[in-house]
Amino acid sequence: MTPAGHVHLIGAGPGDPDLLTLRALRLLQEAQVVVYDRLVDPRIVAMAPEGARMIPVGKSPKCHPVPQDRINRILLDEARAGHVVARLKGGDPMIFGRGSEEAAFLMAHGVRVDYAPGITAAQGASSATGVPLTHRGLATGVQYVTGHRQAGQVLDLDWKRLADPDTTLVVYMGVANIGQIAIGLMTENLPATTPVLAISRATTPGERRLLSRLDRIAADARAEALEAPTLFIIGKVVSLYAQQPVTDLLEQAVAHG
Amino acid sequence: MTPAGHVHLIGAGPGDPDLLTLRALRLLQEAQVVVYDRLVDPRIVAMAPEGARMIPVGKSPKCHPVPQDRINRILLDEARAGHVVARLKGGDPMIFGRGSEEAAFLMAHGVRVDYAPGITAAQGASSATGVPLTHRGLATGVQYVTGHRQAGQVLDLDWKRLADPDTTLVVYMGVANIGQIAIGLMTENLPATTPVLAISRATTPGERRLLSRLDRIAADARAEALEAPTLFIIGKVVSLYAQQPVTDLLEQAVAHG
Ligand SMILES: C[S@@+](CC[C@H](N)C(=O)[O-])C[C@H]1O[C@@H](n2cnc3c(N)ncnc32)[C@H](O)[C@@H]1O
Ligand SMILES: C[S@@+](CC[C@H](N)C(=O)[O-])C[C@H]1O[C@@H](n2cnc3c(N)ncnc32)[C@H](O)[C@@H]1O
Repeated sequence: MTPAGHVHLIGAGPGDPDLLTLRALRLLQEAQVVVYDRLVDPRIVAMAPEGARMIPVGKSPKCHPVPQDRINRILLDEARAGHVVARLKGGDPMIFGRGSEEAAFLMAHGVRVDYAPGITAAQGASSATGVPLTHRGLATGVQYVTGHRQAGQVLDLDWKRLADPDTTLVVYMGVANIGQIAIGLMTENLPATTPVLAISRATTPGERRLLSRLDRIAADARAEALEAPTLFIIGKVVSLYAQQPVTDLLEQAVAHG
Repeated sequence: MTPAGHVHLIGAGPGDPDLLTLRALRLLQEAQVVVYDRLVDPRIVAMAPEGARMIPVGKSPKCHPVPQDRINRILLDEARAGHVVARLKGGDPMIFGRGSEEAAFLMAHGVRVDYAPGITAAQGASSATGVPLTHRGLATGVQYVTGHRQAGQVLDLDWKRLADPDTTLVVYMGVANIGQIAIGLMTENLPATTPVLAISRATTPGERRLLSRLDRIAADARAEALEAPTLFIIGKVVSLYAQQPVTDLLEQAVAHG
């Protein structure tokens, strides 16, 4: 009988290693093989155990991504060889992470799979900036959407449904299409003055923030040359950022000792 | 000069202490005062340091909740007394957690505040059941809403906007109103056969699951006497649960050694 391998689908969070869960850290440190995406922070990749085999399968937009089929195959082969595999993904594997596609493939082939959730990028950006995702009187709910489409496909989002002044809208993978997204939302009557906060590389040393509004975000993002990974938080909750940014307070705290 | 206190707004996650982030655990263990909600798992409360003063401010629906004003006041007084305060909340403090209300109050009074995000209940339920929140071909996004209203107020959700077959809908605090919610969604043409998974006390020893569909969930929830805290995941992603529940696999794994 073949020894039973096992794949742990692990959320590595938005970047800061301090935001790993206890479980994610333990499973990573018990792994024999670590298969990781480009989005996973290098400080976290460095936390893998000494002897583990490290397999990067980073998908970067233009540089020869490892196709999903090939990733699935690597995971299956490693598990069948009896290894304990840590499949590390940025954020939470269940949110725009294809974790469940990999899991479905593996389970169909009889491989044991389990999940360790991770802090998703929206939560990382929220905690870093102090902008809540819901807030009484400002947002009764929150919605995560992707602004990404395959090359050549149209961005067919349901603008009427998304243009809700009482819901926080968080756009993942939206840098390339933020202009189209802003226009779509304004066409469905989301006010042009709705505040937008773009956060790049949230919770990492390279974190950047850009405060704008719906009718200016596309031009501002271009002027600032925003790049992926960037998240857009759109909605009234962003008004809490301007009023009292958490970092100002932290900076004061540092300055005053 | 008064010594400077500090309030850490900490997400304790859905229950399992293993899902705490490294930062949340460290901040909890450095606290002099711990102010915690009823939703925080007792195993996590027990991780507070020996000498810390423990202040429960649990809001339970009927049993004399500590009013929000009073909680704010406790946090302010403790911070002004120069203490390092851990404000522990279930899940993520920025999602239906009033964390940002407490932060706004404290910052307006000059108290330093920062955030440690937590795994929100939807992610806990997702990782425990294997049901993803997004999945290619099943859900292009995910939305979190609350099914709760103050006593006497109507549940005025925008059903047309929520009834989207291509978005996963996660209802927090929905046990009392799930019947009304299901009817609202069906009236706006979300199919009666849309699968619904209710998860109570996800990631705790008392976890329970109920697989149903939109036209039956209210009756099933009543028959099973579901109680808070319960989360409803509504949408096509739930179809992945029936096919291959993760626990079955784990149970097999345990059974077979
Ligand atoms: C393929 S998705 C993966 C999302 C991931 N599974 C999660 O839960 O955060 C990649 C997108 O997530 C967002 N993202 C991930 N990490 C981020 C970070 N540290 N700061 C800002 N955005 C981030 C960006 O929008 C990026 O384009
Ligand atoms: C006041 S809200 C707090 C949400 C929390 N801030 C979070 O991010 O998960 C309380 C609701 O969260 C949901 N919830 C919290 N923990 C849960 C758990 N372990 N299992 C299922 N639902 C949970 C339930 O819907 C509950 O009524």
